[in-house]
Amino acid sequence: MSGTLVVGQSGGSTATLSNTLAGVLAAALQSGAVDRMYGMCNGIEGLLHERFVDLSNTPARLLDALRQTPSAALGSCRYGLTESDAERALDVLKAHDVRYFIYIGGNGSALTVQAVNRWAQTSGYDLHAIAVPKTIDNDLWGTDHTPGYGSAARFAALAALDGGSDSWALRTHDHVKILETFGRNTGWVTAATALAKREEADPPHLIYVPERPLTQERFLREVQAAYDRFGYVHVAVCEGLRRPDGELLFASNRLVDRDAFGRGQLGGVSTLLAELVASELGLKSRTDKPGTMQRACMSLASSVDLEESYRVGKAAVDAAVSGATAKMITLEREPGPEYAVTTGLIAVDDVAGKERPLPDAYLNETGNYVTTAFLDYVRPLIGAPLPEYVRLGTPTVSKQA
Amino acid sequence: MSGTLVVGQSGGSTATLSNTLAGVLAAALQSGAVDRMYGMCNGIEGLLHERFVDLSNTPARLLDALRQTPSAALGSCRYGLTESDAERALDVLKAHDVRYFIYIGGNGSALTVQAVNRWAQTSGYDLHAIAVPKTIDNDLWGTDHTPGYGSAARFAALAALDGGSDSWALRTHDHVKILETFGRNTGWVTAATALAKREEADPPHLIYVPERPLTQERFLREVQAAYDRFGYVHVAVCEGLRRPDGELLFASNRLVDRDAFGRGQLGGVSTLLAELVASELGLKSRTDKPGTMQRACMSLASSVDLEESYRVGKAAVDAAVSGATAKMITLEREPGPEYAVTTGLIAVDDVAGKERPLPDAYLNETGNYVTTAFLDYVRPLIGAPLPEYVRLGTPTVSKQA
Repeated sequence: MSGTLVVGQSGGSTATLSNTLAGVLAAALQSGAVDRMYGMCNGIEGLLHERFVDLSNTPARLLDALRQTPSAALGSCRYGLTESDAERALDVLKAHDVRYFIYIGGNGSALTVQAVNRWAQTSGYDLHAIAVPKTIDNDLWGTDHTPGYGSAARFAALAALDGGSDSWALRTHDHVKILETFGRNTGWVTAATALAKREEADPPHLIYVPERPLTQERFLREVQAAYDRFGYVHVAVCEGLRRPDGELLFASNRLVDRDAFGRGQLGGVSTLLAELVASELGLKSRTDKPGTMQRACMSLASSVDLEESYRVGKAAVDAAVSGATAKMITLEREPGPEYAVTTGLIAVDDVAGKERPLPDAYLNETGNYVTTAFLDYVRPLIGAPLPEYVRLGTPTVSKQA
Repeated sequence: MSGTLVVGQSGGSTATLSNTLAGVLAAALQSGAVDRMYGMCNGIEGLLHERFVDLSNTPARLLDALRQTPSAALGSCRYGLTESDAERALDVLKAHDVRYFIYIGGNGSALTVQAVNRWAQTSGYDLHAIAVPKTIDNDLWGTDHTPGYGSAARFAALAALDGGSDSWALRTHDHVKILETFGRNTGWVTAATALAKREEADPPHLIYVPERPLTQERFLREVQAAYDRFGYVHVAVCEGLRRPDGELLFASNRLVDRDAFGRGQLGGVSTLLAELVASELGLKSRTDKPGTMQRACMSLASSVDLEESYRVGKAAVDAAVSGATAKMITLEREPGPEYAVTTGLIAVDDVAGKERPLPDAYLNETGNYVTTAFLDYVRPLIGAPLPEYVRLGTPTVSKQA
C-alpha cells in the first residue's frame, strides 16, 4: 500500500529526538511505499489543526542538519487526545491519504498512537501507526532503554563530575551541593550521576530517587554522616522525591502545576532541601538545577544515543511499510561482553501510559545509592568515557614554620 | 634572585583555572630563578596551615592533565586575610624561602596579593607577589576580559540556545522559561546568552542584569508583551537582580547567606520570578538554573579561553622573575579586525576589591537586552561559533479537511 507518511514529535525534549526524525525521513525517502512525507507541526496538535510541513523532497543537507539539532525540530506538544478528537483526526488523515503515522514520544505519546490506530480500525481506514520511543526518563517498558536517555545520563554524569569538582575545590567554604535532575516518578537520570564517581570519596556521595521513599529526617542524617566522613557533600536528587506515604517530599511545593495528562510539573526540591540543610544542620548549601538543558544539550549528547535514535526512526518506517501497526520500536541489548543492540517491536498496548521504575537490583539496600549492576547497565549508553581530572589535594611538603 | 615559587587558586571555579596553573608550572620549570615550586592546598588557607604540594618535578603528563581539568586542581578557598594573619604568613614564606607568590583569583584574591606584598615589604622581606586574573564574572578592572569568562559565556549562550530550542518546541504547553545565571552585581555572564539569538524571534527574548534596576511590575509587563508577540518567552536573568532602591529584587530570599567577604550567597531569583509569572499572568513557567556547572563545565569550555588562561599563567611567572610585584596580569585586546590579545600588567591596588559593571554602551535603553557593541565584544571570547539548528515550524501543505 502506498500513501502519505506523517511524522510527529511529542512530549519533552531529548538531545537526539531530531535524529529520530532524520532516520524516519531517510528511510521514507528510500521506501517505494511512501508517496509524500509530511511533518506535523507540534505533534498531534498539528494534525488536528492540519498544520503540516511538506518534507517529501528533503535534501541531504537538511537530514544532516537535523542530526545536529536537539529537541523537536517540528515542534512538540503535550496534548492528550480524547474521543471527541476522533472524527477530526480521521478526516485529516483521509483528506491527505495518510497511510503511515509515525509518532516519536514517550508513554503519553504511545497513548496517541493507540487512539489513532483504534479510530482508524474502527472506521475501516487502512493505517499503519507506529510509536518511536523517545524520552530522557527511560521509563518505557519493553525496551532495554529509550533513545534520549543516554544523552541525559551523560549530561547528568557530567553535571555531577564538573559540579563535583567545583564542590571539592571549595569544600572549605561550601559544604553541601544538591544537584537536581529530571524524573517525575523514576530516578533513571539521577542514578546516572554515579558514573562521575571513581573513588569512594568522589562525588556524588548520595543519590536519592523516587523509587525509594525518603523522609526529611533521614536525608539530614545521611547528609551529616557524609559530611563528617568526606568534609563536604555532593548529593544528587530527583525532582520527584516521595515520602513513605507516597506524597511528594515537600507537599507544599508551590511550583506544582498540572499538564494535559494531569501530571504535576515538578522542580524545586533541591532548593527546599538546601534550605533544610542550612537551617537544620547549619551547613552552607548550594543547588544546581540544570533544568531543560539536561534534555536538550546537543553539545554533550551521547554518540551511542545519537546513532540509536537515528536507527529507531528508520526501523519505524520499515515496520510501518511492512504492515505493522499499533507497535512501538524497541531496543534489545545483545548478550555478550561488547555492547550492541538490535531493534524490535512491542504492542503499544503493552507500554502506553505505563512507567518502568528502576529495578530493585539497581539500588542499594539503604536506598541512597546505585549498585554496580546499574553502572554496568548505563555505562555503554553514554558514549565516550567521561574525562578524568587531576586533584592535587594532599600536602607533600614537610612543615618548617 | 632565586627561591621557592608558591602558587594558589582562590575563589569560585572556572573551567580554565587549572590551565592557568599549568601555565605557571610550565613557565616556572623553564625559569632559572625558581628552585622549588609548591602548590598551596586551598589557596591562602594552605599557606597559613603550611599545606603545600611539591610540584618541583612536575612531569609533562601532569601539565597535560591539568589542561583537561576544570576548577581548582589544588583546591580553592574564600578566605579573606586579616592583619592577624601577617605574622604567620611571613613565617611560612620565610621558612620555605618563598620569593615568588602567584595567586590565581578574582578581585577578592587581589586583596590577598596586596596584603601579602605589603607585609613582605614592611618587614623587608624580598618577595614578588603577582595576581593572575580568574573569574567567570568578568568584573575586574584593567583587563579587556578575565580568563574563565569566555567559557562561562559560552556555557550561558549554549544554555540559552539549547534551553531555548526546548522552549520553542514546547511553546504550546510551557509558556515562559527563566534561565538564571551567576553574577552577584554584574551581568556579564547573563548578557552572553544573547549570542544564542540569530533572528528577532529567537530566544532569549529578554535579558535582565543587576546594572539596570528592575521592578516586579516591569518584569511582568515585559514578559506579557513578549508572550503576546512571540507566543512563548525565554528570559535570561542574573541571580543578583536589583530594585531601583538598590535592594535585591526579592528582599525576602531565604537562601541569602554571607561568605567570608561579607557578600550574600545568591541564587533562586528565577524560582521566585516563575512563581510570580504563574500567579500574576497565569502563564506556565519553568526555570533552568545550571548553577556551578556554568563555571566548571570543561566539556563546553571556550578554546580561546583555555589558551588565554594558560598564557596568563606563564606571563605571571615571567613578571615575577623579572622583578615585578603587587601587579595583576591583564589581557589587552589588539586593535584591528582580527581578534588578538597581548598580556600586560596593572597594579593590584587599582583592581583589588573593585567591580567592573557592564558599561552603558552594552545595554539597551530599556534595560532589558544587550547591544550590538556587546555582541561584538563577547563573540571572539567564546571560541568556536555556536551550532545552528533546524526549525520546521511553518506549515507548507494546504488544508484539505
